[in-house]
Parts: sequence; structure tokens; C-alpha cells
Amino acid sequence: MSVAFAEARAAAARGEVPVGAVLLGPDGTILARAGNRTEELRDPSAHAEMLVMRAAVQARDGARLSDCALYVTLEPCPMCAAAAVHFRVGRILFGAYDPKGGGVEHGPRLFARRDCLHRPETIGGLREREAATMLRGFFRDRRDG
Amino acid sequence: MSVAFAEARAAAARGEVPVGAVLLGPDGTILARAGNRTEELRDPSAHAEMLVMRAAVQARDGARLSDCALYVTLEPCPMCAAAAVHFRVGRILFGAYDPKGGGVEHGPRLFARRDCLHRPETIGGLREREAATMLRGFFRDRRDG
Repeated sequence: MSVAFAEARAAAARGEVPVGAVLLGPDGTILARAGNRTEELRDPSAHAEMLVMRAAVQARDGARLSDCALYVTLEPCPMCAAAAVHFRVGRILFGAYDPKGGGVEHGPRLFARRDCLHRPETIGGLREREAATMLRGFFRDRRDG
Repeated sequence: MSVAFAEARAAAARGEVPVGAVLLGPDGTILARAGNRTEELRDPSAHAEMLVMRAAVQARDGARLSDCALYVTLEPCPMCAAAAVHFRVGRILFGAYDPKGGGVEHGPRLFARRDCLHRPETIGGLREREAATMLRGFFRDRRDG
């Protein structure tokens, strides 16, 4: 999770929404790490989670991620949560809960649906205070925006 | 929609799930066109809709797609529907309904949720019989698989 936080801080330094993610293989090695790059890449889908899932599958020659763990500093949005189903991510561990934009424990709660085709194991609230503090500025701006 | 069908047929010829998409600008010009490339790119998120949304925003120097129309031969899945919110797609017109994998008129029905931050106008069932016929082989394989 420290790597995900480092990626979030690096994203903030680039002027991005401060979210970071890392994808670990079954032996705990880092398959991919990334921060949010929506501004830099001019790609609204370039969330940290999407970037590490895509990179990790590339690193594994196309193999899905059912034996892998995705760490991310913020609760994944519905797009990333639904993508995690396509990528068959085994476990998702996230930091801050996102009542407005989250798709795992909030909003459509995609993995809790009966029609969900693959359910990653999820653990939320890891180093939550630290994650929430880092994101507070962003959430305040979004709330006021 | 004919362009989307052509892209779907091209995808089938490449051994991909036969789904095609095209993104039209406000004046009706084609901003991007693509077929599904999940196998070729070894990227489970490389759905036709994701590819054209990303390419269209690039073509517009980062501008969102609120004045644009996305045509796709199959009802978008939850990942693509949620991405369309991030990309602020104005209209989505799709062919076949997808009761098992769709996220617009089926499953989480993301745009119908009160917490949805942007609602593309949607029209389903365009050239539905043709779209369904083309996809039937895939659906049959998936059902038997």
C-alpha cells in the first residue's frame, strides 16, 4: 500500500487527482504501479487502477489477474470496478471510501450484484485516515466545483 | 451505424468478439471507429467503445464528448457505460440488447441510477436483428462455455 501512496503523491505532483495503485502478483512482486494520468494522457479513463490492470496483463502475456491483488488509495469507481471483473482481479484492497464516486461499497456496488460475473474479494479502509487526508483537497474542490 | 457494423465484421475476421463502434462529432463526421481488440491487444478493457471514446478525446485535444454520438452494435457493458459517464458522451445508440452483460438497459442500469453524474441519452435496438444475428454465435459459445 505504501507504493500506491507514493504513486498518489506523484500524481498530485503532476497536477492529477491524487490516486495511486499497484498490482501485486501471487508471490507479492510488483507487476505494475501507476498514478492517475487522466490529465497527462488526455484520457478520462486513465485512472490508476485501469493503468495497472492493463500493464499487469501485458506483463503476464495476457493472463488474467485472479491470483493477483490490486491496492489502490481510493475506492474504485464503477468503471474501474467493472473493469476489474473483466480482468478477473482476485483481491482489491483500497484506502479511502468514496461515497460520491465509488462503485464497490457505494453507488451501484457492482460486486454485490447477483448478476456480477466475477467477484474480487475486497477490503476497504486501509490506512483510511492517511488516504482521506490526501484526497480531502480534491474532494473539497469537487464539492465546491 | 453501418460503420459500426463494418468494424464488428472486421473484428470477427480478426477472431475477436464481433462488436464495433463509431464516434461521431456534432457535425456527423467520424472522430473514431474501432472494433473490439481485447485479444489482439491482450487487454480485457479494449472494448470497441473504450477505444473510440479514448481516440475521439485525443482527436479533440482532450475535449469531452457531450456533443457527440457513440454508435455501437451491442449494448455497452457496465465498464463502458461507466466510462461514457467519465467521457461525458452525449448520446449512445446501440444495436443488440445484452441481457447478460449489458449495463445500460440490463444489470446495474447505470444511467438510470439517481447517483449517476452524467446521463447519456440512449437509444437501443438499432438494426437489432442484424446485430443479434452477428453476435448469436458468440452468445451461443459463451452460454455453452
